[in-house]
Amino acid sequence: MATIYNFGAGPAMLPPSILKEAQAELLDWQGLGLSVMELGHRTPACLALMEELELRFRQLLAIPAHYKVLFLAGAARSQFSMVPMNLLQGKGLGAYIVSGLWSSMAYTEAARLRSAYCLASSEEQGFKCVPHIIPEQIQNDTRYIYYTPNETVHGIRFTQAPSHNDLPLVADMTSCLLSEPLNMSDFALVFAGAQKNISIPGLTLLVIRDDLLALETAADLPCMLDYRIHAEHKSLYATPPMFNCYLALKMMTWIEEQGGVSSLYDRNCQKAAALYECIDSSSFYYNDLEPSDRSIVNVCFQLSRPEVLPEFITGAEERGLYALKGHRHVGGLRASLYNAMPLAGVEALTAYMRDFAKEHE
Amino acid sequence: MATIYNFGAGPAMLPPSILKEAQAELLDWQGLGLSVMELGHRTPACLALMEELELRFRQLLAIPAHYKVLFLAGAARSQFSMVPMNLLQGKGLGAYIVSGLWSSMAYTEAARLRSAYCLASSEEQGFKCVPHIIPEQIQNDTRYIYYTPNETVHGIRFTQAPSHNDLPLVADMTSCLLSEPLNMSDFALVFAGAQKNISIPGLTLLVIRDDLLALETAADLPCMLDYRIHAEHKSLYATPPMFNCYLALKMMTWIEEQGGVSSLYDRNCQKAAALYECIDSSSFYYNDLEPSDRSIVNVCFQLSRPEVLPEFITGAEERGLYALKGHRHVGGLRASLYNAMPLAGVEALTAYMRDFAKEHE
Repeated sequence: MATIYNFGAGPAMLPPSILKEAQAELLDWQGLGLSVMELGHRTPACLALMEELELRFRQLLAIPAHYKVLFLAGAARSQFSMVPMNLLQGKGLGAYIVSGLWSSMAYTEAARLRSAYCLASSEEQGFKCVPHIIPEQIQNDTRYIYYTPNETVHGIRFTQAPSHNDLPLVADMTSCLLSEPLNMSDFALVFAGAQKNISIPGLTLLVIRDDLLALETAADLPCMLDYRIHAEHKSLYATPPMFNCYLALKMMTWIEEQGGVSSLYDRNCQKAAALYECIDSSSFYYNDLEPSDRSIVNVCFQLSRPEVLPEFITGAEERGLYALKGHRHVGGLRASLYNAMPLAGVEALTAYMRDFAKEHE
Repeated sequence: MATIYNFGAGPAMLPPSILKEAQAELLDWQGLGLSVMELGHRTPACLALMEELELRFRQLLAIPAHYKVLFLAGAARSQFSMVPMNLLQGKGLGAYIVSGLWSSMAYTEAARLRSAYCLASSEEQGFKCVPHIIPEQIQNDTRYIYYTPNETVHGIRFTQAPSHNDLPLVADMTSCLLSEPLNMSDFALVFAGAQKNISIPGLTLLVIRDDLLALETAADLPCMLDYRIHAEHKSLYATPPMFNCYLALKMMTWIEEQGGVSSLYDRNCQKAAALYECIDSSSFYYNDLEPSDRSIVNVCFQLSRPEVLPEFITGAEERGLYALKGHRHVGGLRASLYNAMPLAGVEALTAYMRDFAKEHE
């Protein structure tokens, strides 16, 4: 069978070396005679795992000491409610920048549960660009600004953090954390679901500045949604998803071995450039997003003859090019190029695209 | 190395056959050329997995059609807030039966977030028995009765569901679901964290009667805590922890192969009886819980000479008998005997206990 490249937007492909290591160790981890999946989270081996995971993650992104790192169970979507419920205690406003499906859903949830307003939106532009932010439109009593640096569904990214009058900046980095450099000091809170660049589904990483943990607790905040409680208990308030953390630790080590986040970023840019070049140089494929705002990890594109889309997908699968169907909200095609996707995968995809275009133009 | 028996209370041991299958398939599941950990949750293979998981689970416990089964990400502890927030919309009361650490924490959280009262408690008895319930003490406007059939930390169990005047009965079955028969019609809502008898940490199973899903939604309920939303989206509202579900499906198949829940229950009773017999027939070990209320899956015991406890644990580990230390709230020793623990594990433990007693009496 040919090499398979999984372009899924998440759950995404893992580096094959991590899968092989996990397979080899699955019945006996560290010579303990037990699987890491069976070990109590308060055993010395698991406590050491959590400590090393945090340390390596901090090192990769140079997280300053006045930020806490939390490892939370479940999907990043929980943060759509946890952010406003933790940062607004019945007073103050959250300002939302709406640039695609995910930020739109985060805004809707925040506005339902607390007081939130839309500071800027590119919905009228069909989310084909990032919105323009006018700092003067930030309302009094705003407690934070929220945005999604990379929108997985629409394939749009911010190339720089929005200016924000020193207000705490909150970012849903589910699809870009660890795939590009990050200046943590620009942010007050950053979170990411694990299933793109970190681990498998069921884990969310969250980095929060200490001053946000010192805010008064809202009386109606469930314990499991309270950042303070998870921070106090070092992410062990409830049984953590240890296997996901174990894979995350392997991922941190793998990223180091690849030369760190900046090396991966260079490679990610190279991968995206090769694919956009293939799209832009063809009359058969197109991407009508604002060129400067195009995502480097989720490359969306359409066919000039949409009726051959099913044929494109079937042919791709026959060549081992998987999960290229666009999100159901947008249609078309999407190739996700997270850290684990090698350049060879993009080359295989562009070769197929050129062949397919020749046959169907 | 000798066979290792993991008596951990959860994360608990998995049947070795499941670990071996998962290992063999880790790089290529169902001949797809991908790991199940990398597959999108909306792919046909994953949708079929979820469907089969639900079907087999329903069959094992004969869940009637007017109950929904939800597969939720994260720890069972989230249910301590989700139950009251879903079942009490600013009105009505939750009645709590407090029989140990877990029900006590569930009650505290419910009382903080909504209106809840303690219907019965055995705290004054040091949780050495289940509390006596006086149905006449059920207050007007009670909307549900909550209890924990098996208390993992204290090693206490209810041998039958409390009488409840036809009020919806809610049960935290984290440590007993699938290890004993269940008459679902006695219950309105049942949930269980996966890390005892179902899968690995990061998944919670929940069974809820349809009439509870028809209740009005409280305005302050975050989407991710709303049972209705998870039911409408067939547990795919957010990215589900697919690998945990994959292992859960293997577990359902394994339980069937063992002869189903009633066969496992017989074996569980036999295992517990052998261990309690060893404790009760010795003057060196003791368990001072009400004999009729003793757990069959979490057997707690003490040494008459507590100073040799560290030596007991070290010696046990040398024989491959792991994770016997009691919970930090209770101390002493605890052997958890969930479905995956074979009788041979209990025999190895009792043999060691007899030897150790002889040397240290």
